[in-house]
Amino acid sequence: MLNDPIKLREGLLNGDRVALGRAITLAESLKPEHRSMAAEIISGLIAHTGKSRRIGITGIPGGGKSTFIEAYGSRMAEAGHKVAVLAVDPSGVLSKGSILGDKTRMEQLSAHANAFIRPTPSGNMLGGVAAGTADAILLCEAAGYDTILVETVGVGQSETTVRDLTDLFVLLVISGAGDELQGIKRGIMETADIVVVNKADSGNETKAKETAARLKNALHYFPAGERNWEVSVIPVSSINGQGLEHIEAEIHSCFTNLNENGRLQKRRKEQDGKRFREMVNHIGLQKIMQHTDVAAFISDAETEISKGNQTGFSAAMAFAQFLENRFR
Amino acid sequence: MLNDPIKLREGLLNGDRVALGRAITLAESLKPEHRSMAAEIISGLIAHTGKSRRIGITGIPGGGKSTFIEAYGSRMAEAGHKVAVLAVDPSGVLSKGSILGDKTRMEQLSAHANAFIRPTPSGNMLGGVAAGTADAILLCEAAGYDTILVETVGVGQSETTVRDLTDLFVLLVISGAGDELQGIKRGIMETADIVVVNKADSGNETKAKETAARLKNALHYFPAGERNWEVSVIPVSSINGQGLEHIEAEIHSCFTNLNENGRLQKRRKEQDGKRFREMVNHIGLQKIMQHTDVAAFISDAETEISKGNQTGFSAAMAFAQFLENRFR
Repeated sequence: MLNDPIKLREGLLNGDRVALGRAITLAESLKPEHRSMAAEIISGLIAHTGKSRRIGITGIPGGGKSTFIEAYGSRMAEAGHKVAVLAVDPSGVLSKGSILGDKTRMEQLSAHANAFIRPTPSGNMLGGVAAGTADAILLCEAAGYDTILVETVGVGQSETTVRDLTDLFVLLVISGAGDELQGIKRGIMETADIVVVNKADSGNETKAKETAARLKNALHYFPAGERNWEVSVIPVSSINGQGLEHIEAEIHSCFTNLNENGRLQKRRKEQDGKRFREMVNHIGLQKIMQHTDVAAFISDAETEISKGNQTGFSAAMAFAQFLENRFR
Repeated sequence: MLNDPIKLREGLLNGDRVALGRAITLAESLKPEHRSMAAEIISGLIAHTGKSRRIGITGIPGGGKSTFIEAYGSRMAEAGHKVAVLAVDPSGVLSKGSILGDKTRMEQLSAHANAFIRPTPSGNMLGGVAAGTADAILLCEAAGYDTILVETVGVGQSETTVRDLTDLFVLLVISGAGDELQGIKRGIMETADIVVVNKADSGNETKAKETAARLKNALHYFPAGERNWEVSVIPVSSINGQGLEHIEAEIHSCFTNLNENGRLQKRRKEQDGKRFREMVNHIGLQKIMQHTDVAAFISDAETEISKGNQTGFSAAMAFAQFLENRFR
């Protein structure tokens, strides 16, 4: 079955986790033979996709993302939802260890019949885009998962990537720590649709409320973007469950909003178009830079620049002329 | 003279401002005929370049950059230094009006025999790089200017560009305003070599001192980078001149430091190499995207994606295959 696209597709539509896992592996692969199998699987599934709520979850390492996903995901799974957890890790550094890590971290959720947890993919970034994750989402949807949680792993630009893969972006912060220490970039605050103040327990409840109030106030300074609702800041305990109900209601309300006038569908297509553009730029640039003559020209120019014989701008202008003559 | 590279070079070496201005115009131009003239001028000048202190100055609009440059530049010019003021404006939006604006804003400095103020260039960005400004710096140096002030204009990514064009980066803030309101991005604080708290006058002196102390404290949390000195935070009044002496001493001390072990020269070459790489990537990508077959393929793929017939990732993989076959 593992190399038969038709059987994989059938298994996947029947909710077979092994088939789903294998199909995602193919979709995340950059090998042409895997890609063509993945394309064949997905092309027959498009009608079964798009019906989930795609939720991005970000926050600094140590902010309790895993425990939050464990708590929120388990609650949804208990309520009869089918929950898939995916991860994006642009750095690739943490990938190796986290395959086991994901499973142990989300013990309760991973054991649930309604949940599917995908280990962090390793090294499948293509020009800054988590190449296969968009397709992995489609595959999960076709397998019947209605709640897709996409988590940022590691550091760097993953927030933007996950934002562009999902419908709703949840930012996890913890109370007490200063904004500087939380590594909250201005850009991230702006893109958050819901802010969750995690770890509001063990005597930390008042602090969490204060942090929430402070953030709520700060959020007034940020532009609303395409969002037509006010961003909620919700204290939550992933340990005792306090606040989860509130978050569930808020997520529900956001999606009601997003579903008006086909905004969600429009946005998803824009996201996919943007991803395509980014990958195409990366592939195109790689192609031209790998050309022997081009590589030689650049290498020579770099030597001249390092010797101080030519300025970077002059060399770049000469490069433009060279391309013009070489590739007519 | 205006179109004779040899005469322009001669005039420029004699300190003729008209020749300098014309040479910069040629250097900033993207027209091939202008570029080849600029290259001819610069190639004969390299020996006369590199002896200035290149100082970048940034801060939000309204933070008093112009008045600070007026005050600091005039002080330097009075002391016998030759001061050139250049500007980088990636947005290009403000360019038109600021040609006159620069002159009127820096009335005292622009009238000084030792100063040369270049109006903000318009629309000469090449792949995010202020294409001609690096060459404009060399031309100013050849014309005898020993202090080059490069100012960021407008908003956006200009800070990084100016940072990579200069030896020392001065961040201007004003007292009182919260960090949020000052638009200080985390990345900028980190790259500042000297922080100036401007507008420390008119009853604002105490506030400015407090702001300086607060920033000084915050700076402890930032990595030192390549810098081997502690970043100073200096309150200054561009109106009454208080603090300028301190800034002058600090800049002097920083350059003493930079000049040790040839670090400055090494860094300038690295900057130029980086600029070259960025421009080359931009030019290369433009070249391949302009190809008729490539443009048609991408346009078709985008239509299919917008119809939902194909996913972005599948289309990108097909694009890679197409390039492979089309350009062997």
